[in-house]
Amino acid sequence: MKIVLAGAGKLATNLGQALHAAGHDIVQVYSRTMESAAALSAIVGGSPVTDTGAITDDADVYIMSVTDAAMPVLVPVICKGREQKVFVHTAGSMPMDVFQGMALHYGVLYPMQSFSKERKVNFREVACFTEANDEYAAGIIGRLACDVSDNVKPLSSEARRHLHLAAVFACNFVNHCYAISADILARHDIPFDVMLPLIDETARKVHSITPASAQTGPAVRYDENVIRNQSMLLRNNPLIKEIYERMSMSIHRKYTKE
Amino acid sequence: MKIVLAGAGKLATNLGQALHAAGHDIVQVYSRTMESAAALSAIVGGSPVTDTGAITDDADVYIMSVTDAAMPVLVPVICKGREQKVFVHTAGSMPMDVFQGMALHYGVLYPMQSFSKERKVNFREVACFTEANDEYAAGIIGRLACDVSDNVKPLSSEARRHLHLAAVFACNFVNHCYAISADILARHDIPFDVMLPLIDETARKVHSITPASAQTGPAVRYDENVIRNQSMLLRNNPLIKEIYERMSMSIHRKYTKE
Repeated sequence: MKIVLAGAGKLATNLGQALHAAGHDIVQVYSRTMESAAALSAIVGGSPVTDTGAITDDADVYIMSVTDAAMPVLVPVICKGREQKVFVHTAGSMPMDVFQGMALHYGVLYPMQSFSKERKVNFREVACFTEANDEYAAGIIGRLACDVSDNVKPLSSEARRHLHLAAVFACNFVNHCYAISADILARHDIPFDVMLPLIDETARKVHSITPASAQTGPAVRYDENVIRNQSMLLRNNPLIKEIYERMSMSIHRKYTKE
Repeated sequence: MKIVLAGAGKLATNLGQALHAAGHDIVQVYSRTMESAAALSAIVGGSPVTDTGAITDDADVYIMSVTDAAMPVLVPVICKGREQKVFVHTAGSMPMDVFQGMALHYGVLYPMQSFSKERKVNFREVACFTEANDEYAAGIIGRLACDVSDNVKPLSSEARRHLHLAAVFACNFVNHCYAISADILARHDIPFDVMLPLIDETARKVHSITPASAQTGPAVRYDENVIRNQSMLLRNNPLIKEIYERMSMSIHRKYTKE
């Protein structure tokens, strides 16, 4: 299929590469800056575009992979005059009906993964959640998704926004916990590497037991001495201290209730 | 070596098994309840004891693996009359000098791992941090540690308490983020399994890039629409909402400062 890709961030880069590798024809890459558009089109093919007026009509699918804030501005501009085409966005939190009244055939392809430019992800393992407003869009989006991933599931906008929130906890906040841990270690000249076996086991555990039954540490056994002392160690960093105290309280409450 | 093991929790169970497998002789297992003492001594050998008065003098090493709150009570009772022996505790946050004035030879063997009774951990991979008050204790504790783990490092009490705090973030709070994620998914009938590829990639990433450069999500790109909407989804759970907002703010601040 002929595809116009709007956006050149981490998700657009990884999805564009996967679509290109699957044999699809990326005819244009749109981005606000020529630098980003050119960098991505050099990898996935097509010509770089920074002017929405220069976006071609000669494509089957228009994929928008931009920040949620940019979507309401970009959607009408890209859909206008091409109402018969298929329009897709890739955002977890954005409902499908952002396209309503702008196009006839549209939907969502949300790849749930944390993409970094430095790391190549095996896209075939990435869970992709799809949604479409009609059979025609469902056919096109379903085919694109299955061409890049072995893990495709249809999901409504309503369920997807909760899924995205769950992913923010399981990935973005988890990574921030790693970063806080790394900062504490760095202040005491301990290499972050010492933490990797613990990080790996913590992730592996929840493949075989539920997170609730895997919980360990001072908060779940409510070791008040440790909690108080650790909280004091964070006294120079009030926001991290608040996070420490609320996480500890949340753990304590969850396991005394259950 | 002849070892008395005081404590029968997750850490005591895993350490006791590793010491037993390495050929050491667990002569007694002390616990407050006969049920716990008997359950562990059935696995690691020795006789179960619930009365501190029945603890034998005929051991080389006394290992205390109990909650931090129980330590100040148990240490004097176990050390008294056996001042020539070697005394060891296994707690991340407890300083070594909890033994000061109670014994002549003492120290710490802190295995930094999240132990569950349901899961067998390969103890040889567990990072063990040791400390001792003299050469004699250092020799005994170092030998025990190397007999069970290939990853032994000496560390001071002061550094260890920061290491323990870092581990609480990288393991206990990470697992709680998984649990919050699982709760959100369960409320919308989405199986937790869908999150596993994302959890695995998030853990794998920090083997090759720093957590700071691995950070993704709405907070680091400061997508205020998404943050506001996700926060609203948590309005019925004020404590989790506070955690969401503080984590998002902490991520935003970290990456706008740097």
